[in-house]
Amino acid sequence: MPQTRHLEHINLPADIKALPEDALPELCAEIRELLIKTVSENGGHLASNLGVVELTVALHRMFDSPVDQFVWDVGHQCYTHKLLTGRRDGFSELRREGGVSGFPRPAESEHDLFLTGHSSTAVSSAFGLAEAKNIQGKNGFVVAVVGDGALTGGLAYEALNNVGRTCDRLIVVINDNKMSISKNVGAMARHLAVMRSNPKYYKFKTAVERLVKAIPIIGKPLRNWLFYSKAVLRSAILRGNLFEDMGFAYLGPVDGHSFKRLVSAFTTAKKMERPVVVHVSTVKGKGYRPAEKSPKSYHGVSAFDIETGETQEARDSFSARFGQCLCALAQTDERICAVTAAMTAGCGLTEFRSRFKSRFFDVGIAEGHAVTFSGGLAKNGMIPVFAVYSSFLQRGFDQILHDAALQDLKMVLAIDRAGVVGEDGEAHQGLFDAAFLSSIPKVTVFAPMTYAELEMMLAAAVYDVSSVAAVRYPRGAQPLPPAGYVSSAAPFSIFGGGHAPVLIVTYGRLFAQAALAREALKERELDCDILKLNRIWPLEKEAVLAALPYNRVFFFEEGIKSGGIAEHFAAALLETGFGGKYTIHAVENRFVPCMTVPRALSVLGLDAAAMCAAIEN
Amino acid sequence: MPQTRHLEHINLPADIKALPEDALPELCAEIRELLIKTVSENGGHLASNLGVVELTVALHRMFDSPVDQFVWDVGHQCYTHKLLTGRRDGFSELRREGGVSGFPRPAESEHDLFLTGHSSTAVSSAFGLAEAKNIQGKNGFVVAVVGDGALTGGLAYEALNNVGRTCDRLIVVINDNKMSISKNVGAMARHLAVMRSNPKYYKFKTAVERLVKAIPIIGKPLRNWLFYSKAVLRSAILRGNLFEDMGFAYLGPVDGHSFKRLVSAFTTAKKMERPVVVHVSTVKGKGYRPAEKSPKSYHGVSAFDIETGETQEARDSFSARFGQCLCALAQTDERICAVTAAMTAGCGLTEFRSRFKSRFFDVGIAEGHAVTFSGGLAKNGMIPVFAVYSSFLQRGFDQILHDAALQDLKMVLAIDRAGVVGEDGEAHQGLFDAAFLSSIPKVTVFAPMTYAELEMMLAAAVYDVSSVAAVRYPRGAQPLPPAGYVSSAAPFSIFGGGHAPVLIVTYGRLFAQAALAREALKERELDCDILKLNRIWPLEKEAVLAALPYNRVFFFEEGIKSGGIAEHFAAALLETGFGGKYTIHAVENRFVPCMTVPRALSVLGLDAAAMCAAIEN
Repeated sequence: MPQTRHLEHINLPADIKALPEDALPELCAEIRELLIKTVSENGGHLASNLGVVELTVALHRMFDSPVDQFVWDVGHQCYTHKLLTGRRDGFSELRREGGVSGFPRPAESEHDLFLTGHSSTAVSSAFGLAEAKNIQGKNGFVVAVVGDGALTGGLAYEALNNVGRTCDRLIVVINDNKMSISKNVGAMARHLAVMRSNPKYYKFKTAVERLVKAIPIIGKPLRNWLFYSKAVLRSAILRGNLFEDMGFAYLGPVDGHSFKRLVSAFTTAKKMERPVVVHVSTVKGKGYRPAEKSPKSYHGVSAFDIETGETQEARDSFSARFGQCLCALAQTDERICAVTAAMTAGCGLTEFRSRFKSRFFDVGIAEGHAVTFSGGLAKNGMIPVFAVYSSFLQRGFDQILHDAALQDLKMVLAIDRAGVVGEDGEAHQGLFDAAFLSSIPKVTVFAPMTYAELEMMLAAAVYDVSSVAAVRYPRGAQPLPPAGYVSSAAPFSIFGGGHAPVLIVTYGRLFAQAALAREALKERELDCDILKLNRIWPLEKEAVLAALPYNRVFFFEEGIKSGGIAEHFAAALLETGFGGKYTIHAVENRFVPCMTVPRALSVLGLDAAAMCAAIEN
Repeated sequence: MPQTRHLEHINLPADIKALPEDALPELCAEIRELLIKTVSENGGHLASNLGVVELTVALHRMFDSPVDQFVWDVGHQCYTHKLLTGRRDGFSELRREGGVSGFPRPAESEHDLFLTGHSSTAVSSAFGLAEAKNIQGKNGFVVAVVGDGALTGGLAYEALNNVGRTCDRLIVVINDNKMSISKNVGAMARHLAVMRSNPKYYKFKTAVERLVKAIPIIGKPLRNWLFYSKAVLRSAILRGNLFEDMGFAYLGPVDGHSFKRLVSAFTTAKKMERPVVVHVSTVKGKGYRPAEKSPKSYHGVSAFDIETGETQEARDSFSARFGQCLCALAQTDERICAVTAAMTAGCGLTEFRSRFKSRFFDVGIAEGHAVTFSGGLAKNGMIPVFAVYSSFLQRGFDQILHDAALQDLKMVLAIDRAGVVGEDGEAHQGLFDAAFLSSIPKVTVFAPMTYAELEMMLAAAVYDVSSVAAVRYPRGAQPLPPAGYVSSAAPFSIFGGGHAPVLIVTYGRLFAQAALAREALKERELDCDILKLNRIWPLEKEAVLAALPYNRVFFFEEGIKSGGIAEHFAAALLETGFGGKYTIHAVENRFVPCMTVPRALSVLGLDAAAMCAAIEN
């Protein structure tokens, strides 16, 4: 930890309140130094956290956590909050197994209310917290800190729309850094920009109202006309912005790096006795030159060199290869469109965006809309490809079912970050897509292991499937395939002679682990064959028949067990008259916390060593 | 069909355009007469359809379907559209198997673009349709007709937020009947009300702007002051409503029963060359006294007597019993809250709303928010019970996973309309909840067959389960239990001596069918035992062990096969060493269209006769 004068004495929010005001800038500098150092070593969300240092310090001076309750949306902007609420000592283990999580985590601290890994949840949950306090007659404010990006999600709107005027201790702080993850899109972003550009506007309203009240001093014709129309004019002038339309009091825009302004705004907000929006303007990456210059590069980063700002991230990845493949397809087929929910870079679509502008759609953090919008494109003859992280696609479940599959529409889901994802932890694990997609009628799911398979399967999804087709691939790079491995997009492949006593069934990157396990077991004179599923849903009948003769079948699945492919395979085997023994190794009735991918595979019993151990028993 | 002069000559939209203007009121009267007659016989959505007769006629006169494309949201307001687009002859078979669907249905007509059974989808899909036209350089407008209730759903907002100003052929018609399904809630509803109450306001804006431009005639001090602030004042005055904030041109409010006003508005909208919102004010139930007086009673109705307006709907139902049970629990436990997404009456919560006002929350058509909001209530110590139709809960999948189960929060999901639902057809079937809920870690699911079991299981869900607990029950009344049946909330029950050659496994109302099948088979000297699951997830280990000794096991499930309980049971059996034969009868990779419940069970192979046939083979 860097040398600090103030930070080391802050263990609880009460300690921040005890600090003299003139020490605050120095405290913030110390916090920034620690943030930069830690994220440069551990990776994490940097730019957004640098932007909210003053805001977080001001909040903890003005409110009393945990009696007052903070909900962070999206939660990755919570690092300073963690430093100020008893987790400074463990902060060097940020985003490491057993260390401080990169998101608020209720199990970690009473100051963390919700694990907010998915966007746009805070107004809903904060409203619930506040209503519970109301019913119980309990004290305390509830403060939702919501990024401007999170406001593009429909869940935020459902909540804003629903908050009653009587909910008098709910404060929504909009952390407007003009960026969300990449460039913010849509009407809400434009609306925030208008408000930011007009700082005097909202003070001005009161002045205009005074003017209308002072009508007698104006010349007679004008006076009569104004008088006649006073009510209407007043409503025209009193009408504020979108938040006021929705029943909130609005304060702002407030400079999010000025303690004086922040304190003044929160003081007013606490006195309002109605739900308030405090619109705070912050600079993403504040205080670290490379991050200020290119905030989106420092949104979520791997470890990097502090001096140069260079990250050690690998160039090649499934995401990058997907983007290249999609560009190649779009080059020759004008029907192909790319759709993303605020994940252009993360999903490898930067090149597509610049090359095929009219066929590229960033819809904001709005996965449900992305799917239904793709349905509209498809209905009129386009071929939409929605690239999305597995975990976030959960937001589009009903839309895939109702607005795509039920409509017999064809779209492609390019599912990135499928499987365990490492340091982002619980909320970001891509462990459910195989289960929920395979429960929707008429959906096809492919799982490549190699880049070459990704390319083949993407083409198959685009051209060979008439309904919804998903291609799911993990975060990062392809695993090392076994020697002599030939990529294939056939529905399944069998490795081995078909007469071994044991059959391993698996798909995706776990095949590489299975191949290693097979080698290791061969050395111990235990023969295994491997059945690798490429099209994991619907199951190819021949694949089930191929497993039928084995006495011992192990299915290893990097996904939830309940409703996953291994269970479908079990049911199909049983219905086909399988009489051998069958064992599933998958993620069983649990969430998977923050740990590296190799470690997670080991803990879940899904790496080569665990496979050997399971089979040898 | 009633005698008609005009309607019988209208087979395609072109025929409406050929009608003289003065014939339109008579045409509308004929349409209303037919709507009332048909819905009184077949059941269906009456009030909303009576409200949009003139609007639909005007749309088909002003636009050219199918070159211009209509999307109806929610789709149940499409009856007049169907009558005008070639489906008048089949209309007497509305909502009957093989007849005209009660929702737009692409398979039925090229004039139906999307099967819009779930709310708030139209702006998304219409935007997709319009962008596809843009890319292809094709002609034609896309018109989304959106109810005011549908505007409470976040999906609608995600789309409104995302529509670009360049999308110049997209027209969103807001059908504002001030009601949605029951009373509309939230800020959007208040906002629409303000606009309705101020019809002159939007014309007035232009006049005020002229005034500002005429500043020179005002006295000097005022003039300077106004001049100095002109830009700000202008923006204050030019600022329109929420839709204009979001980048749409706004026209309205327009009287939705005046052809003159509708034609004028649509004429202007077509010339705007930018996305337009046309705000149309309609009267739900228009033209049928009982429905005008009590529109929510005539939202979705069973067959009724035209003279008196009395419906033949049964009084007793799972919904009603749920409402009574919940009131009883809330009476003694102040932590219990009821949450609904615009389905107060449908879910049996009318009494709860009046008795426990401060603990009752209607959040609008916003299932995702309902879940996350419930998470907030739970976090601060309340026990939220979210009552929701199975099919609509699909909208809350990620929220159940991320904002409840992952947070270790306890809430109860009271899932109504689980299983096949009858006449509402494809989009409303409750066939997926068992699959998607059981894929989420730490979720418990109960399935009562009788009212008594509902009561016991609801109490168990509230008090005996520490995480998310769902109780799922079908539409309508309990089935007739077999003689001597004793209701139970034990995880499972076995009927029979445990030594029959055949075991039937099932849950929920199918048990009644299984009991009938067992009786019938006994007469044919084929003995069956029945394993009835009460807590269907997680599976009780003892239940799996109980099935182990049987040579022949049949699982009958009124739900999707893939990921359903029968597959979980298969996998558990196989992993436990089961060596017999196992067969699943469930809904396999298909959607289930409109038909009565008994007929659907028969077609799906899930009634007693089908069970007998399957077992005898």
